[in-house]
Amino acid sequence: MALGEFDLIERYFSQIGESPSVRIGVGDDAAVLELPEGHVHLISTDTAVSGVHFLPDSQPDVIAYRAIMAAASDLAAMGAKPEGMLLALTLPEANADWLASFADGIRSASELTLLPLIGGDTTRGPLTITVTVMGSAPIGCYLTRSGARPGDRLCVSGTLGDAAAGLAILDRADTGIASAHVAFLKSRFNQPMARLALGRKLNGVATSAIDVSDGLLVDAGQLARSSGVGVIIDREAVPLSVALRAYADPAQTMEWALRGGDDYELLFTLPDQAEMPDDCTEIGRVSSGVGVRCDGVEKLTGYDHFER
Amino acid sequence: MALGEFDLIERYFSQIGESPSVRIGVGDDAAVLELPEGHVHLISTDTAVSGVHFLPDSQPDVIAYRAIMAAASDLAAMGAKPEGMLLALTLPEANADWLASFADGIRSASELTLLPLIGGDTTRGPLTITVTVMGSAPIGCYLTRSGARPGDRLCVSGTLGDAAAGLAILDRADTGIASAHVAFLKSRFNQPMARLALGRKLNGVATSAIDVSDGLLVDAGQLARSSGVGVIIDREAVPLSVALRAYADPAQTMEWALRGGDDYELLFTLPDQAEMPDDCTEIGRVSSGVGVRCDGVEKLTGYDHFER
Repeated sequence: MALGEFDLIERYFSQIGESPSVRIGVGDDAAVLELPEGHVHLISTDTAVSGVHFLPDSQPDVIAYRAIMAAASDLAAMGAKPEGMLLALTLPEANADWLASFADGIRSASELTLLPLIGGDTTRGPLTITVTVMGSAPIGCYLTRSGARPGDRLCVSGTLGDAAAGLAILDRADTGIASAHVAFLKSRFNQPMARLALGRKLNGVATSAIDVSDGLLVDAGQLARSSGVGVIIDREAVPLSVALRAYADPAQTMEWALRGGDDYELLFTLPDQAEMPDDCTEIGRVSSGVGVRCDGVEKLTGYDHFER
Repeated sequence: MALGEFDLIERYFSQIGESPSVRIGVGDDAAVLELPEGHVHLISTDTAVSGVHFLPDSQPDVIAYRAIMAAASDLAAMGAKPEGMLLALTLPEANADWLASFADGIRSASELTLLPLIGGDTTRGPLTITVTVMGSAPIGCYLTRSGARPGDRLCVSGTLGDAAAGLAILDRADTGIASAHVAFLKSRFNQPMARLALGRKLNGVATSAIDVSDGLLVDAGQLARSSGVGVIIDREAVPLSVALRAYADPAQTMEWALRGGDDYELLFTLPDQAEMPDDCTEIGRVSSGVGVRCDGVEKLTGYDHFER
């Protein structure tokens, strides 16, 4: 975007959020973070593409907010304290209204995640957003996908399938359910909340964790593979919201809960003696096998796809 | 890219480079870096878009290599030690040959920059590469754009304008100059080298630095603005390669040297007593004014555009 780039970045993206770790934010060749001694740095990057991860006519604030939350959710899954984010924005044209709304979405997500915007890049091209998030954790003390052990309890936060249902009814005028349920499901898709506080609480307690971004079965499969174990999910135990059960029949509900993505809840494993955190549910066990077993699901087509 | 994403990442991008700071690389929710005590973390992100920053039919290894070098150049400009990189790749289809070549480009750049690949994201969409680089520096000891003081010498590494000439002759069969000159100019565009070693050498010595990615006048303007000073460039002193002078007439040569981008040299300011590093040239002075003055150039149209 050549020279306009500087104007854009400065006008909309210069001062969003703050953190005591930031020595240099937006405006130099690189951002500078100084963590407290004895801490490691955690970094993750996530791309959202127009027409793939969001509809081209989505509201700019929702696009920005969701892209940041998706990235922040990876920090939550590691039990990290949020420290900062970089935003690489590729957009077809520099429209001031669009950018103002997009910046609103950044601000909302920044406030809720406590991730200050400390750098980025703005380029011209097809609408794409890459968010890089940085967090910190004490040396040797962070959650990974690889620590699950046979016998651990498999647990998940919140409820699953809501975001998939929210996406399905996003543009639907008549859903046949109470407007509060509609609002809840839509907000679960449009305004997800990365489970950062829960992640930090689980740090040092859970044996492994992953965020549920691609769907429970897929993400459980990733966790199982990374840990070299199997997981057994009790489908009857999977937590479902009142709104989801009001909207869909049991088969559709279970499909969304098992395979719907974008809920950004945490899937984690707890040793037997550990206390279950609030708003979390035991949904199965870690086994000494491989892959994911889920009552009544393992014979479905596509099982191979999430086994790994 | 749903499930294929995992396969792609694992097959091509899992183990490239290494560094003693990396605790967790590709494969978990976030990468983990543990820096030596007393160090800050430097982070920068850079996006390259097909049709904007490179031609759609460019060789995949060149695309990857250049995208990484452009990002690494920001670490060079801060005087940082390279620690790791994340690569967010958006591509229209998962072609194995294309990916293999792309991975070759990552490997070459990783070896030359000493940046291990520690994470990333692969998504489907229009070809776009966002590279996030991380480096380290002692607390309080890194280069910025903002430290130039009136009286400092303005210096640049290497030669300027070569990459712009290289781009101009990229597909030209007959250039009228020696093939060694052609090869040199093309390589300056296709295989730039981020000045990481020089950046680290300048750390603690130079008063300010920026990399020359958008063109000398633009980047000098950025440095001047960040430092709250003016800079005066002696156009006769701007270093030009033998190949560039062989290829173009003096007017074109100067245009490329002053306004051509992608050279990834370092522009920096030195106090009077500091020794000039090898392969660097004094091209002017820092003044107490504002903006960039360049003999014979300040009256050209477009001057306002690079003054800021």
